[in-house]
Amino acid sequence: MIQALFQEKLHVLNVGLSSFADSIAMAGGSALQIEWAPPAQGQAEVGRDLARLINLSSVETANQSAFDAYQSAQPVLRGVGIAGRVIPGMAERMILHSGPPIAWNDMCGPVKGAILGAILYEGWAEDPVKAESLVSRGEIVFEACHHHRAVGPMAGIISPSMPVWIVDNTTQGNQAFCNFNEGIGKALRFGANSREVITRLKWMGEVLAPALREGLETLGGLELKTLMAQALHMGDEIHNRNVAASSLFLKKLVPALLKTRTPSNEIAAVVDFVAGNDHFFLNLSMAACKAMLDAAHGVPGSSMVTAMARNGVEFGIRVSGTGEQWFTAPAPVVDGLLFPGYAPSDAAPDLGDSAITETAGIGGFAMATSPAIVKFVGGTPQDAIDNTLSMTHITLGRNNAFTLPPLNFAGSPAGIDIRKVVDTGIQPIINTGIAHREAGVGQIGAGITRAPLACFTQAVSALARTVERSE
Amino acid sequence: MIQALFQEKLHVLNVGLSSFADSIAMAGGSALQIEWAPPAQGQAEVGRDLARLINLSSVETANQSAFDAYQSAQPVLRGVGIAGRVIPGMAERMILHSGPPIAWNDMCGPVKGAILGAILYEGWAEDPVKAESLVSRGEIVFEACHHHRAVGPMAGIISPSMPVWIVDNTTQGNQAFCNFNEGIGKALRFGANSREVITRLKWMGEVLAPALREGLETLGGLELKTLMAQALHMGDEIHNRNVAASSLFLKKLVPALLKTRTPSNEIAAVVDFVAGNDHFFLNLSMAACKAMLDAAHGVPGSSMVTAMARNGVEFGIRVSGTGEQWFTAPAPVVDGLLFPGYAPSDAAPDLGDSAITETAGIGGFAMATSPAIVKFVGGTPQDAIDNTLSMTHITLGRNNAFTLPPLNFAGSPAGIDIRKVVDTGIQPIINTGIAHREAGVGQIGAGITRAPLACFTQAVSALARTVERSE
Repeated sequence: MIQALFQEKLHVLNVGLSSFADSIAMAGGSALQIEWAPPAQGQAEVGRDLARLINLSSVETANQSAFDAYQSAQPVLRGVGIAGRVIPGMAERMILHSGPPIAWNDMCGPVKGAILGAILYEGWAEDPVKAESLVSRGEIVFEACHHHRAVGPMAGIISPSMPVWIVDNTTQGNQAFCNFNEGIGKALRFGANSREVITRLKWMGEVLAPALREGLETLGGLELKTLMAQALHMGDEIHNRNVAASSLFLKKLVPALLKTRTPSNEIAAVVDFVAGNDHFFLNLSMAACKAMLDAAHGVPGSSMVTAMARNGVEFGIRVSGTGEQWFTAPAPVVDGLLFPGYAPSDAAPDLGDSAITETAGIGGFAMATSPAIVKFVGGTPQDAIDNTLSMTHITLGRNNAFTLPPLNFAGSPAGIDIRKVVDTGIQPIINTGIAHREAGVGQIGAGITRAPLACFTQAVSALARTVERSE
Repeated sequence: MIQALFQEKLHVLNVGLSSFADSIAMAGGSALQIEWAPPAQGQAEVGRDLARLINLSSVETANQSAFDAYQSAQPVLRGVGIAGRVIPGMAERMILHSGPPIAWNDMCGPVKGAILGAILYEGWAEDPVKAESLVSRGEIVFEACHHHRAVGPMAGIISPSMPVWIVDNTTQGNQAFCNFNEGIGKALRFGANSREVITRLKWMGEVLAPALREGLETLGGLELKTLMAQALHMGDEIHNRNVAASSLFLKKLVPALLKTRTPSNEIAAVVDFVAGNDHFFLNLSMAACKAMLDAAHGVPGSSMVTAMARNGVEFGIRVSGTGEQWFTAPAPVVDGLLFPGYAPSDAAPDLGDSAITETAGIGGFAMATSPAIVKFVGGTPQDAIDNTLSMTHITLGRNNAFTLPPLNFAGSPAGIDIRKVVDTGIQPIINTGIAHREAGVGQIGAGITRAPLACFTQAVSALARTVERSE
């Protein structure tokens, strides 16, 4: 037998350093390099924590319970409210931001720019310089949107008098909130705060919000899951491509708007605004995802991720079984397509609560259904399919309400399991916008990024400790 | 050498009767059955005509010219008119129908039902019995839509006081017309003619048409090609799936409608009607396709198909190089999904001018971009991709304005070449609705059908004769 082995041509599988495979190939042999990395990035302690969690049936049971809650959630758009009146815990002179908590001095350019814009919008200061001195004197309180059942794209700024969407999860009874989408280019969420940005925000509060509120009252609520499912059949992944969802939303809204007492010139302006912004639905998608995931949060022992969010400096995740704790790592740079005239060095690191969509199994996780999005975020339609397929290795199941036609109507992979991420080293994929790193400029592109592994290794160890305590 | 052949294992390619391959397989050999049929269905005369056309450079030049005209056409929705006033050659007491010309006695049930409905709608008779006796006395003239630069889905009935879309091809200057879409289920185009059907047609003429006309005047025309290209990126194939195109159309229309003097309750009713019908855009798609293809018609020597149309009895095609002549064959039965309660024996044969979409490279030809449509017409998403790919073997080129994201943004196969159809035996694919075979019932399903080869073999011989004459 041994002799036969030496007579045959070499067929080598090489694991680890690829130079071994290279030498064999140079000597005329064939060697296949296996893409493999040790679990938990080779950290022995994390590896032991992981092994403990993988063998525990209580974690499986907890995950089933968390996933079922997420899957059975029914997010319904209930209406429009004023942040300071409807968001729980929202105080005077409080401003909410995206991502995990962060102090003013540590914030990135676009978030600072958006905060100064919000202060001008609220009328707490007359100009950006006075606004900044107000901040320096410690007169403004900053908290994470996620600490108030809210989410916001990019800078994610919500100040007390801003209008917000109110989404009810009619199955478990929790609520979620998100601000309104202002359109692309120079917008507060990308750190722009010029007069035109503030003027548009004022119009959104004074004209858009009341009209939408009346329209939604006439409509009596709008089931978001059905609408999102339909948009997935129309090529949206409902994070960076929302053209179908926005159109379907408008189709529901307009007949209702026309039945309200809103003056017809205001209806015309509102319809122009909504029809002119293919990303309008993004903020509704985010609130729906937040409502579905909060339903899955707080199940002891569950390793399911219930939030991924970035503040432009840190990327943070929260896990169902570890409560309010954030597990953070430096926010990565986004690999994407930049608008003409911008270079990668202009880009702020990954930013925004919009990764709540990927956490809920859409966005990057549902890219297979959205081949056209590659023109916006880069790559090929085959990459989009591969991205969705690879996410099946790190998720608890398939969301059967979100079926993907190009994958023969399979459900979208959903319910990120921190154990599977750490075990496989496969990082969750996120489609996202790219903001300029300086305040005041705005969006400069869009692309694809991945959640840092370090968030997940920390979470595995933290979950292992909670499980130990309960044993 | 010969000896070596007998020592080796048999690898057989079998052409023709598959029983030869079966015998080899039973004897332990391996035989691959080649799917091949003689060109021109083995008709020697047609084969000779085909051979003549394939070798002629004048046909290639003519096809390039026809294809360029089709590709450069720019269909713009110009407005809404009354059929009797705007359709060329439309006379009093004339009714247009779909497909090639046909006499009353030969018509299928749904077409007869729709014609009786149109007579009631026009007020030429008070009830279906009196309407039929009017027809029997020869007082109504029937002509094909295609003879009047018009198209109509299913029965395709256009009577003088019906409103029609007016589409201008701004490149070559020709116009095309189509009636309005009434919605699904019981509709005139499926042969239904009850009081509710006629009442809805009246409302469409009295309220819908004037509102749309004013809206389009405010809009100053609407470029249809751009909108259709966008819908193809949103999972429509724009024949049997029009949900994206209809939504995009509404998004353009509503802001314009709100700027007209139309009373707001009428705008509300119009928006409800359009928003409630995901097939609303079909008739606009058809008019756009007719405008693009008429631009390619009448090029001497061209073997490009410029119309495929069915009247429920016969399937007919027209070819650019053979003028006004129809080449017909019995209309096939549609293989599809029937609504609950109906059997294949209830179905009328293939019906309607809507195959103009496939003739223009969308519909069945663009199915690859519309995986979700298989839930409506049957098959799998992979079948949808295969259908588009197979159409590349019988077309002159790719429409670069109609790109298909799942095929890496390749253009949709377009410009059916009668030579290639006859040479390969591959029949053009058509997605279509299915009408009940009796008058008055309506739509009972949807599915996929193929254009009969006999239309194409006749066309090849006819084109060969025109080429002979000009030699």
